[in-house]
Amino acid sequence: MDIYFAGSIRGGRSDASLYAELISMLQEHGTVLTEHVGAEEVEKQETNEAKTDREIHDEDIEWLQQADVVVAEVTNPSLGVGYELGRATEWGTPILCLFRPDGEHDLSAMVRGNSHTEVVEYEQPADVTETLASFVSEHR
Amino acid sequence: MDIYFAGSIRGGRSDASLYAELISMLQEHGTVLTEHVGAEEVEKQETNEAKTDREIHDEDIEWLQQADVVVAEVTNPSLGVGYELGRATEWGTPILCLFRPDGEHDLSAMVRGNSHTEVVEYEQPADVTETLASFVSEHR
Repeated sequence: MDIYFAGSIRGGRSDASLYAELISMLQEHGTVLTEHVGAEEVEKQETNEAKTDREIHDEDIEWLQQADVVVAEVTNPSLGVGYELGRATEWGTPILCLFRPDGEHDLSAMVRGNSHTEVVEYEQPADVTETLASFVSEHR
Repeated sequence: MDIYFAGSIRGGRSDASLYAELISMLQEHGTVLTEHVGAEEVEKQETNEAKTDREIHDEDIEWLQQADVVVAEVTNPSLGVGYELGRATEWGTPILCLFRPDGEHDLSAMVRGNSHTEVVEYEQPADVTETLASFVSEHR
């Protein structure tokens, strides 16, 4: 089971440790292709590896194409996460979006109003243990 | 010429008046299907019209499909703008992204690294008068 986890990088890293927790929970159900999204130093890593934006884009899109399912944390607005959701919607890849309503922004109508996307609201990772397990097993 | 203008709504409205200026410049070259993105009261309007998120999503996606070109202001991170760029990329619709580098966030690699997307940096609307005119006429 290949899982694409999507979270904000340049849109803001305030949820990075939360992403790491969700990724670690997902790793009990399959391979998370985008484990780096939870790494505190992801931008530094990309700089050290001297990756161009073209390389980052193309690598991410390859992983997205390979994925059996997409799980996105959508509390922090992010162009990259939205872009990945748009492409995965076109391909029919199952999408689960996790949203914390206590954040600064309401969730985009492009996410909440997308009939192809399942949106689950939560407060902390422990709340979605069952959600993640059943989402993955539904699409296994 | 049908133009889809994309800008942040729930991701933050601090650039709303800038969107209005860009929309008014684009209206010299064609019909902007999403004129409401520049309206200060866009969220209130949606509430007054009692539109559901599903209706907002489906209406926007219909306009996006109808558009000959997409112009997006991408300085403020936005899930909705990213989503629209992802879908338009899949459809091969020409995309121009406008980015102000003096903002709070670096531009996503999913935008800057997308070979299908043209990115132009600017400071104020007057700087992109020629850019908008030539982008639209290229795809007329």
